[in-house]
Amino acid sequence: MARVGIIGIGHGQFGRRSDATVQELAFEAYREAVQDAQIDPKDLDGSVIGSVPEYHKQRSLPGVVQEYLGLNPLPTWLTEVACASGSAAIRTAWMGIQSGAHKLMAVIGCQKMTELSTPEILALMGRVGEVQWESVFGTTFPAYYALFAKSHMHEYGTTREQLLQVAVKNHFYGARNPNALFRKEITMEKAMESEPVSDPLQVYDCCANADGAACVILASEEIAKKSSKPVVWLDGLGCATASMSVLRRPNLVGLPSAEQASHVAYEMAGVTAKDIKVAEVHDCFTIAEIMAYEDLGFCKKGEGGRFIEEKQSYLEGRTPVNIDGGLKSKGHPIGATGVSMTVEVVKQLRGEAGERQVPNADIGLTHNVGGIGQYCFVHVLRRD
Amino acid sequence: MARVGIIGIGHGQFGRRSDATVQELAFEAYREAVQDAQIDPKDLDGSVIGSVPEYHKQRSLPGVVQEYLGLNPLPTWLTEVACASGSAAIRTAWMGIQSGAHKLMAVIGCQKMTELSTPEILALMGRVGEVQWESVFGTTFPAYYALFAKSHMHEYGTTREQLLQVAVKNHFYGARNPNALFRKEITMEKAMESEPVSDPLQVYDCCANADGAACVILASEEIAKKSSKPVVWLDGLGCATASMSVLRRPNLVGLPSAEQASHVAYEMAGVTAKDIKVAEVHDCFTIAEIMAYEDLGFCKKGEGGRFIEEKQSYLEGRTPVNIDGGLKSKGHPIGATGVSMTVEVVKQLRGEAGERQVPNADIGLTHNVGGIGQYCFVHVLRRD
Repeated sequence: MARVGIIGIGHGQFGRRSDATVQELAFEAYREAVQDAQIDPKDLDGSVIGSVPEYHKQRSLPGVVQEYLGLNPLPTWLTEVACASGSAAIRTAWMGIQSGAHKLMAVIGCQKMTELSTPEILALMGRVGEVQWESVFGTTFPAYYALFAKSHMHEYGTTREQLLQVAVKNHFYGARNPNALFRKEITMEKAMESEPVSDPLQVYDCCANADGAACVILASEEIAKKSSKPVVWLDGLGCATASMSVLRRPNLVGLPSAEQASHVAYEMAGVTAKDIKVAEVHDCFTIAEIMAYEDLGFCKKGEGGRFIEEKQSYLEGRTPVNIDGGLKSKGHPIGATGVSMTVEVVKQLRGEAGERQVPNADIGLTHNVGGIGQYCFVHVLRRD
Repeated sequence: MARVGIIGIGHGQFGRRSDATVQELAFEAYREAVQDAQIDPKDLDGSVIGSVPEYHKQRSLPGVVQEYLGLNPLPTWLTEVACASGSAAIRTAWMGIQSGAHKLMAVIGCQKMTELSTPEILALMGRVGEVQWESVFGTTFPAYYALFAKSHMHEYGTTREQLLQVAVKNHFYGARNPNALFRKEITMEKAMESEPVSDPLQVYDCCANADGAACVILASEEIAKKSSKPVVWLDGLGCATASMSVLRRPNLVGLPSAEQASHVAYEMAGVTAKDIKVAEVHDCFTIAEIMAYEDLGFCKKGEGGRFIEEKQSYLEGRTPVNIDGGLKSKGHPIGATGVSMTVEVVKQLRGEAGERQVPNADIGLTHNVGGIGQYCFVHVLRRD
């Protein structure tokens, strides 16, 4: 099978971006990616937008972005699977190139989360849970993940300190990422004192909404091989789904969709969890990162708490995770997140991550969850 | 290049479906398509949902539909490009199969348009126009298409009777389509007397919102060739875009995206406009169908009015168009429409259209417009 390469990456500043419209955010990331790839934008033959449209006052987002980037009349479409929309965009662009229909595509994850009022946003987010039997009774995302945390603590003895150690780690690295929303380290003491959100989760267990965009340029093998940049190949793509309703899940200590998606991606790329030298995982809440360690096979089921306690997911550990700060510290512009993860992994595989560089990183992974795990996309990337 | 075949079709009742949730509508169409394809649903390896999410109270639509259809843990994602979302879903499923990542996929276009109040719907629809310079000043979809109609009348002498003849034709055929919202013929007199909406458009120039769903099963060439049903091949796929803002268009007498998308699709399928024996086009307003005749090359630019006046788009004419009633008579559940068009063309190419059958239909086309033509998807289908 031919391969699809990532030959350009771009990433804007995440945060409250009242200075920019969603298309302006998209342009920031796109411009950087095109420059990075050293391509003439005229050679592009399509774009895919990862975003959740309903948080924007302007709808028909692909049209707006496409026009602002000067990409008309090229084909475009938007993919949406809640917080995994960016990875779905990468998946469909990969398919577009692998199918022969496209050769060189821009994938843009872009999202404004601050155009609407907080009550409007909370109402929209609640509707990503199952509305007939669950969110209608008041479950919000923190409440869902609090259920996961409680179950994990009960089942495996995971502690509040272990949960918050994820936040301490991600703030540590986020402080070193110029694109992150929160660029400051935190202490365990400060984290432990933070306000409760949904027991056992506290403020520092939760990521924050943000505006932002990220972009990757995908190319056919033929074009990628001519690139002057070190090419990172998108060699494994896994996607799996699970019940919307957590009531219908077999247990609440992990995400079956993540486990399954990683199996598919590993098999396709011909690697195992041990081969992953750097990973970006979906830490919307601290418990989500701990479950990801286990679902992805970085450690055994139930050992995620110890994995972070032993700093195995730090830069120097067995499998460095979220060395850009993760959703926790970067902020979570939902449609952009999957693309942002990909940008970071590419940087690491190219050896361009500066003080955050993981030594000898040759194979990396992204793990992007939609909703409460009703979708998970896992991608395996490999440098030349 | 290997081919992708359509081996199953399903279509629910379009209309005000207060009896069904969006996932129930999806199931109606899906069940029929699976039965039609005579496949075991266990052999499916993914689904794509075409829908515009924000009209539903429940978000995370692919998750809800996937679960209701019993398709977890298979991959799924949603595509959105306004009213062309269904065709974008078909395009990405085609790419999924052609890329080798998938072999047998269900594409489900599904949409409820009646969950929200009319003012809410109008506000959402307005935002599909350009909000910074246009819709904020009050342009609605009828107003946009009234601009097209006025320009076409001014430039080519197109008449109100010619516009309304499109409605008379589509109601004539819609009366013979059990899935249509409006199953009654109308007379030119009645149409001419209908209330004004946006000059020169009257009530009978406009399609109506509806709830509904349609489904097609796409298969790799290898699987399709084993199908017991006559296979219809998806041989040409064109997609093009144009400025969101009609202010920035070179003229208002056609859709450049439609013209360009049809060129791409014709070339890919190795056909010309003359080869098209049956077409489903996006008649959201009567003028849109007249412009489609011209943009697709069924007649010369400016001759669309005469084309309908001479009944060239009737069943017995040169290029039969919307012989299922079109958006005008079927109703327009926006995310479902592109898939509904595909179902009808497959029926025609298989010779299963009953009293609406176009004789000797071997090659057909769908033309699905998003927004005000900022997107257009044209697909060419061919029977074995």
